[in-house]
Amino acid sequence: MSAGPRPGGRAPVEGAVTLGIDVGGTKILGIALDGAGRVRAQAKAATPRWIPPEPTADHGGEVVVDAVGGVADELLAALGSEASAVARVGVGVPGLVDGAGVLRYAPNLPGGEGLDVVGRLAERLGPRRVVVGNDATCAGLGEWTMGAASGATDAVIVTLGTGIGGGLVVGGKVAGGAHGFAGEIGHMVVDPSGPSCPCGKRGCWERFASGSGLGRLAREAAHAGRLDAVLRRRGGDPEAVRAEDVTSAAAAGDAGARVVLDELGWWLALGLANLANILDPSVFVLGGGLSGSLALVLEPVRTAFDSLVEGGRGRPEVTICLAALGERAGAVGAGLLAAGGDRALGLTA
Amino acid sequence: MSAGPRPGGRAPVEGAVTLGIDVGGTKILGIALDGAGRVRAQAKAATPRWIPPEPTADHGGEVVVDAVGGVADELLAALGSEASAVARVGVGVPGLVDGAGVLRYAPNLPGGEGLDVVGRLAERLGPRRVVVGNDATCAGLGEWTMGAASGATDAVIVTLGTGIGGGLVVGGKVAGGAHGFAGEIGHMVVDPSGPSCPCGKRGCWERFASGSGLGRLAREAAHAGRLDAVLRRRGGDPEAVRAEDVTSAAAAGDAGARVVLDELGWWLALGLANLANILDPSVFVLGGGLSGSLALVLEPVRTAFDSLVEGGRGRPEVTICLAALGERAGAVGAGLLAAGGDRALGLTA
Repeated sequence: MSAGPRPGGRAPVEGAVTLGIDVGGTKILGIALDGAGRVRAQAKAATPRWIPPEPTADHGGEVVVDAVGGVADELLAALGSEASAVARVGVGVPGLVDGAGVLRYAPNLPGGEGLDVVGRLAERLGPRRVVVGNDATCAGLGEWTMGAASGATDAVIVTLGTGIGGGLVVGGKVAGGAHGFAGEIGHMVVDPSGPSCPCGKRGCWERFASGSGLGRLAREAAHAGRLDAVLRRRGGDPEAVRAEDVTSAAAAGDAGARVVLDELGWWLALGLANLANILDPSVFVLGGGLSGSLALVLEPVRTAFDSLVEGGRGRPEVTICLAALGERAGAVGAGLLAAGGDRALGLTA
Repeated sequence: MSAGPRPGGRAPVEGAVTLGIDVGGTKILGIALDGAGRVRAQAKAATPRWIPPEPTADHGGEVVVDAVGGVADELLAALGSEASAVARVGVGVPGLVDGAGVLRYAPNLPGGEGLDVVGRLAERLGPRRVVVGNDATCAGLGEWTMGAASGATDAVIVTLGTGIGGGLVVGGKVAGGAHGFAGEIGHMVVDPSGPSCPCGKRGCWERFASGSGLGRLAREAAHAGRLDAVLRRRGGDPEAVRAEDVTSAAAAGDAGARVVLDELGWWLALGLANLANILDPSVFVLGGGLSGSLALVLEPVRTAFDSLVEGGRGRPEVTICLAALGERAGAVGAGLLAAGGDRALGLTA
């Protein structure tokens, strides 16, 4: 009955080429996706930084709309004579977009709140049809349709970067929630007396298990004298220690760095266990900017997960694996969304 | 296309009368539900306690199977000549039931793990068709089909008793998860250094926001000298203070007891906010044994929820209300499950 994506198959993109553009906190990645699910062109740009003195939709909107438009232009140029047949553009944005296509909450796009994303992009990219969704939900749609969650009726795609985003597949459908806001798993509070989060709360999961969480755990370990080798390379200043210092030291065999990665793994497993208790997925797919470091923590995560999930080893095994589409997952999913991959999620103009 | 329940309508129970039996930690409640969703008979029994020296399926199974069978017999007797037309029995149990109908995890039914629930009940209740599901999921199905969540495409039904159970409606369907285990929201960890939980972890949500959580908060307040009036009525022993002492004192205007209920409300709101971030429901329905006390905390819960959910007041309002079916929600839902209300959830024999 549904024309939506079927897990396990190739992308059910109808008609000609569709553009998918993933707006991240640091970069904008666009692809042109053909009807067989092949990436025909790719373009990148830095996400413009704007912190207006008094944030307004007009002010913040223009720079991002221009940047997304620039990426779309580059993709269309690469497509040559096929460009005129591109009728749909999907865009994933890091925030909550309401039913009218307005960005309601976007801590990683300062000044972006209140922006009429669909309206402004439709002006810039028209007459093409523009569909906007949450970036992590797009990544989930991509991994479920063409990646590591193919074939699952219940899956959670976790994007680990500066923060943590989520794409949920529930009962064979991508879950958008009542208002399209589902999947904000990084702001699940796991320790109400924990560190402050930019969202205004304390102890959100992403304060512990994301890239910035790893940096915080690393600096705590450095202060406590548990990361001496790393600390020496940073001139002895614990506040100068970064997440990537820990992953590279751990890869080189540094025992203290491995302990910090195990801590990251424990916090990651804690949130996954919470999600397993709530949603009972058969698979967790881990992706995002931190995924390069995740191979090192996958085993500690699996062990801690078994000890933290309700029913433990009495449950059927839950697969915890790395994303298959890499950094393209969000853009691929945005393209699928625009192609009609999941109408329930899309806000169109 | 689906024969499942449609929110907002009467129960789509086909054919004759169906039995629905809710096995709780302390009592077993059964009802006979007719095709128009009317309760035609009701029967109750105490849940037998058994803590065998060496738990086995045979040992634990017999007493519960007998008690459920007794409730079914009583319902059939009340139906008189209609009893012979009863072809289906739905049973909700407090635990995780796997795809083969075996109880995999049931901390509130000591000794029950490993019990072949569907097989044993089918022997006792045959030739009637027996369908077994999680008790809170059944309550969710009941409230969604015929109660306070009618009409919602995305809803969470929270049953607050000794622990916390959950029934999830996601994208217009009751969510069972990959293995039928979805909705174990009470074991979402919200404070890893918090009090120990019978599940083996620390700081599960139900340690704070359930009936037993309220008791614990009350005893802490009594120890800290914040519940003097209540404490006097309990002979000065803080360890003798119970959850019901706080709710009755608060209802009578005791300021210290109100503060403890506000604490309960804050913890309840914290978990609801986490679930809203993950699932984005339009409605939370609060039911279960604690629901008699919830009218007093509903306003504090709403206020705290707005401060804890991502995006706060920028989001569309989420309804937080009390259950409509009261203590019958689980039994009604079990009857609907057996009647074919949601095949994805049911384990049949």
